[in-house]
Amino acid sequence: MQFLSDNAAPVHPKLWEAMRAADATDAPYDGDALSQQLDDKMSALFGRECTAMWVATGTAANCLALATMCPPHGGVVCHREAHIEMDEGGAPGFYLHGAKLLLGGASDGSDHAKLTPDAIARVIDPIRDDVHQVQPAAISITQASEYGCSYRRDEIAAIGALAKERGLKLHMDGARFGNAAAFLGEGAASAAGVDHVDALSFGFIKNGGMSAEAIVFFDPELADVARYRRKRAGHLQSKGRYLAAQVLAMLEGDLWLENAAAANEAARAIGDAAKAAEDDRLLHPVEANEVFLRCSASERETLREKGFGFYDWGEDAARFVSAWNTDQQAARQLADAIADL
Amino acid sequence: MQFLSDNAAPVHPKLWEAMRAADATDAPYDGDALSQQLDDKMSALFGRECTAMWVATGTAANCLALATMCPPHGGVVCHREAHIEMDEGGAPGFYLHGAKLLLGGASDGSDHAKLTPDAIARVIDPIRDDVHQVQPAAISITQASEYGCSYRRDEIAAIGALAKERGLKLHMDGARFGNAAAFLGEGAASAAGVDHVDALSFGFIKNGGMSAEAIVFFDPELADVARYRRKRAGHLQSKGRYLAAQVLAMLEGDLWLENAAAANEAARAIGDAAKAAEDDRLLHPVEANEVFLRCSASERETLREKGFGFYDWGEDAARFVSAWNTDQQAARQLADAIADL
Amino acid sequence: MQFLSDNAAPVHPKLWEAMRAADATDAPYDGDALSQQLDDKMSALFGRECTAMWVATGTAANCLALATMCPPHGGVVCHREAHIEMDEGGAPGFYLHGAKLLLGGASDGSDHAKLTPDAIARVIDPIRDDVHQVQPAAISITQASEYGCSYRRDEIAAIGALAKERGLKLHMDGARFGNAAAFLGEGAASAAGVDHVDALSFGFIKNGGMSAEAIVFFDPELADVARYRRKRAGHLQSKGRYLAAQVLAMLEGDLWLENAAAANEAARAIGDAAKAAEDDRLLHPVEANEVFLRCSASERETLREKGFGFYDWGEDAARFVSAWNTDQQAARQLADAIADL
Amino acid sequence: MQFLSDNAAPVHPKLWEAMRAADATDAPYDGDALSQQLDDKMSALFGRECTAMWVATGTAANCLALATMCPPHGGVVCHREAHIEMDEGGAPGFYLHGAKLLLGGASDGSDHAKLTPDAIARVIDPIRDDVHQVQPAAISITQASEYGCSYRRDEIAAIGALAKERGLKLHMDGARFGNAAAFLGEGAASAAGVDHVDALSFGFIKNGGMSAEAIVFFDPELADVARYRRKRAGHLQSKGRYLAAQVLAMLEGDLWLENAAAANEAARAIGDAAKAAEDDRLLHPVEANEVFLRCSASERETLREKGFGFYDWGEDAARFVSAWNTDQQAARQLADAIADL
Repeated sequence: MQFLSDNAAPVHPKLWEAMRAADATDAPYDGDALSQQLDDKMSALFGRECTAMWVATGTAANCLALATMCPPHGGVVCHREAHIEMDEGGAPGFYLHGAKLLLGGASDGSDHAKLTPDAIARVIDPIRDDVHQVQPAAISITQASEYGCSYRRDEIAAIGALAKERGLKLHMDGARFGNAAAFLGEGAASAAGVDHVDALSFGFIKNGGMSAEAIVFFDPELADVARYRRKRAGHLQSKGRYLAAQVLAMLEGDLWLENAAAANEAARAIGDAAKAAEDDRLLHPVEANEVFLRCSASERETLREKGFGFYDWGEDAARFVSAWNTDQQAARQLADAIADL
Repeated sequence: MQFLSDNAAPVHPKLWEAMRAADATDAPYDGDALSQQLDDKMSALFGRECTAMWVATGTAANCLALATMCPPHGGVVCHREAHIEMDEGGAPGFYLHGAKLLLGGASDGSDHAKLTPDAIARVIDPIRDDVHQVQPAAISITQASEYGCSYRRDEIAAIGALAKERGLKLHMDGARFGNAAAFLGEGAASAAGVDHVDALSFGFIKNGGMSAEAIVFFDPELADVARYRRKRAGHLQSKGRYLAAQVLAMLEGDLWLENAAAANEAARAIGDAAKAAEDDRLLHPVEANEVFLRCSASERETLREKGFGFYDWGEDAARFVSAWNTDQQAARQLADAIADL
Repeated sequence: MQFLSDNAAPVHPKLWEAMRAADATDAPYDGDALSQQLDDKMSALFGRECTAMWVATGTAANCLALATMCPPHGGVVCHREAHIEMDEGGAPGFYLHGAKLLLGGASDGSDHAKLTPDAIARVIDPIRDDVHQVQPAAISITQASEYGCSYRRDEIAAIGALAKERGLKLHMDGARFGNAAAFLGEGAASAAGVDHVDALSFGFIKNGGMSAEAIVFFDPELADVARYRRKRAGHLQSKGRYLAAQVLAMLEGDLWLENAAAANEAARAIGDAAKAAEDDRLLHPVEANEVFLRCSASERETLREKGFGFYDWGEDAARFVSAWNTDQQAARQLADAIADL
Repeated sequence: MQFLSDNAAPVHPKLWEAMRAADATDAPYDGDALSQQLDDKMSALFGRECTAMWVATGTAANCLALATMCPPHGGVVCHREAHIEMDEGGAPGFYLHGAKLLLGGASDGSDHAKLTPDAIARVIDPIRDDVHQVQPAAISITQASEYGCSYRRDEIAAIGALAKERGLKLHMDGARFGNAAAFLGEGAASAAGVDHVDALSFGFIKNGGMSAEAIVFFDPELADVARYRRKRAGHLQSKGRYLAAQVLAMLEGDLWLENAAAANEAARAIGDAAKAAEDDRLLHPVEANEVFLRCSASERETLREKGFGFYDWGEDAARFVSAWNTDQQAARQLADAIADL
């Protein structure tokens, strides 16, 4: 019973079907009929005109989006726990040509890896407005956050207002956007803060996809630059129709929401058990498909002996991640095992 | 009857099978069992220890390979018609951090887009050995070339000798490596010039793949750097096992050679007809799966009216590309149509 | 009697005076009183509002200017003999983050290293308007050219019209701008084509300076970016007042024109002798301070035996460069020696 | 009475003399007789073979040195208060092509902006040895530190041992190296930790120079790369002899030490007064030419009314910097004024 990573899950059957259906010969790159539908489908989903393009990884999505927002001599404000800072092998430095990540937020997890206008202001206010210091050009937030927590509509709006006031662009890393949207339950546009966010990295791979994420530009001007940058980064696949097929299959009938809701349900069961434990073992509210649990080395040993797979999270904690295909019964078994600790 | 691009062809059924078989949960990135087999399988194929990694595009393969060979302040000698110069949207400038492509070879097609030691020497000999000029660090050749011609074993050896003498690394862009190897008929190691070449971009996508090429390092030290650079470029896919599955399926039973041979056969039929035409319409020998044909606008119109799809190649020529799935009968029909012009 | 390079000449006494006068303590970087005068003095010289900043080298001036005009994924059209292509050690690739130089013009010197609208069109017209090819963003011309020839007012206007039509920015490398302006005799604004050119690298070092060139932005919006880039490139000197002092001293009383005219006069004397030779030895018209002379190895030997220093220019030619301090009598002696060959 | 910045001080008369003496025509770039002496003079000073080159700014010196030590995908450990992090406008990101600064040390000033092996280990130990995280390649320390404190011989040795153990290169930013060496009093080699440090940015500009710092490579292999990078960064001045002249004049008769000692003496007088104050106003020991003083807004007002110029340092502190030409009597007056607060 594996709770290591949603990256390890298989591809959803409907995506296999869609990819096979894309097998007929069509124009290469993104000239095919499927890729050409992305703008319209995303515009319909988000209730406003937007421009969308597929890429193969979340790292590429994040960095291509940010590269349209920040010049090489600028900076991007993000949480110090953000994926772009911690887990992308320096990709922002590469794609943004040496631009700087300006780190904010709590280092002790107390903000659940979510930025606030205050936290952002604490980063940018001390920056002298001169050429000796890197000037901020954009903000990047993560929906859901690195600790599986979701920004509420008004939280995004508040950050958006600050961004606008300071002349900064706003990017949303949505590697687990589906999980956040499923948790929030107010629709894609609300979860994405489309009135405030300039571009969203819309993740599908952790949510049942194989190799396709989408960058959705709510500011279409940015998309033109991204097209050239995607090719330049070697991310314009010649058989792009197989990526488009994945994205379209995910949108069809809101499969992305359905998959995410299933993963969230499993996480919630586990989280509820953790929260009900004598000392509330939960480190962060469960607002997506991740559960961060206080538990000792021996307790982790106990869980592993019962057959549960997961990552240690520092000395005294563990991380459990559910996926679209997580067996709900396995999740309840894990919940029981946590209750029994 | 489509002869526009081998990029437009569907994915081979055996690759679909292999990808579906990879669906079981496994470790993310390249920690899965399939990715772990690449080194061994490639070593067996090339008859020497090598290190291999998958990437999603030929552009990424070429540029990641070259980035291990050339510092940001260096240069890479390539043919002026090379893909890295003409068709990769400036990706070498991005991946190599501003390193320069040093262009050589004929501009009139007379060398069939193949470099020679002489052509390379004409590029690098005039470069003053001082800091005011960009110093060459590597050579990149394309097997088969942009005009569908294959380097012979001794041609590679001669370039390799020059490279060694001048202290330059040697890269081979093998987007159509299978077609070259199938034409040459002396095995993978010979076609790749493994005693001279430091890294090969081994293409599968044009040859029946979906989204996987391999970079094969015959100099394993280079591979370590490439691993970090692949992640940094957003090319380390989290479900890498589906890319590994494609590569392994291609190697299994030499499917890559079989597919390439089929494409070559179709091209040869077309090429033979072109060669037999009154004035020998062939612009370049057919040594892979591409046919470059002298033909007028009205002749192209005639061919299109008969249902053949292809690209114009300048004013007075056309390019026909066959693929692994090209119907041999369609190829013969095209050959007849060319003969009838 | 040295005609090797105007880079080797000493610093003009008035610049020494000006630098010494700047010795009083003042604000660091470009906050000092002298640096603050640059915009006004340059605006007065060019008859329009412009923004100016000092840098220590022509390479930095060119590349900082171009970096404001061309994104990392774009291209700059320049002559294949241009300094930015041939002699700056790949600096454009560094400063422009991998952007590409798109080379045009004659390779046999027949255009005297000057671009024309036709030559530029031949570079950019074949570029397909898609993401696979690097799109042009700017044009760079050199006044005076690498072969010492000057663009006339209408030649610049014609290039400017093309640039405007194609949406390209226009940069002028003026390492020997003073010499061109002195030759043309129509004032700084005309020689700089201020109605067409977005930024000028205004060279002083070859013209009697020590370590200061100026970037003059006729499009002031570009200057803001350049300020950050200058610091980021380590070119914002902390005692910038000594650079400002040099530039101001050069402008004072048009010393820059006076120095350039002196150098030009020496070159003209040499060039006239070369032109009057039986077979007209001049390879390019003398329109600045450089003379390119057809002469054999034995003739060069003869000249060197008479004490003249100069560079060989390929097999059958020599280059003579005069400077602000070239002794006019020495120039006439050289002219006589050439006549005697 | 100005204590704002040592950058604002004039050029030392001996440097003016040396520059004027360099006025005779000589070879351009660094081919002149003066530039050619740098290696020998620096080798003599540091008692070991080293390679030295001039550059115009400390930012360029630091970044060119680091660019030889750290690949684009690597990281450089430095103090979070280091100049390369705080005050160079993102230059390391530019010169190192997106490499990352890995920040350590205290954020409250308690370590006086000096790194320790422990502080470095706390930065690099948590970095997972995989491609998802940026791997450290080098360490940069500052002598004297941003708070005017000097590394002792054994402190450098301890950091050097850690660097060696972890396979990291070691760089020393010596913008105020002279002040540290003068304070430590054990000679240049000891202050530079020549047995541990791979390259030193040897600052002269704050110490009476005009526009020349030196990069001194104790690992000469690194120097070759730096030469190409210097040109590529537009830092190879064509009249380099004027920079070489400054450096040589500084070394002549240990003028660099003499100037630094004078500045230190003034700072010490001020610091002693601050230390003797009722509550010990000193925030950091005075081990170079900077004094950081706890003092309230009204106290600062008092000092300014008495004619002293200085920078506020946050809410409750002030920074005083002395220079080679600081009048010792003015320093004593300031000391008295501080005592009177």
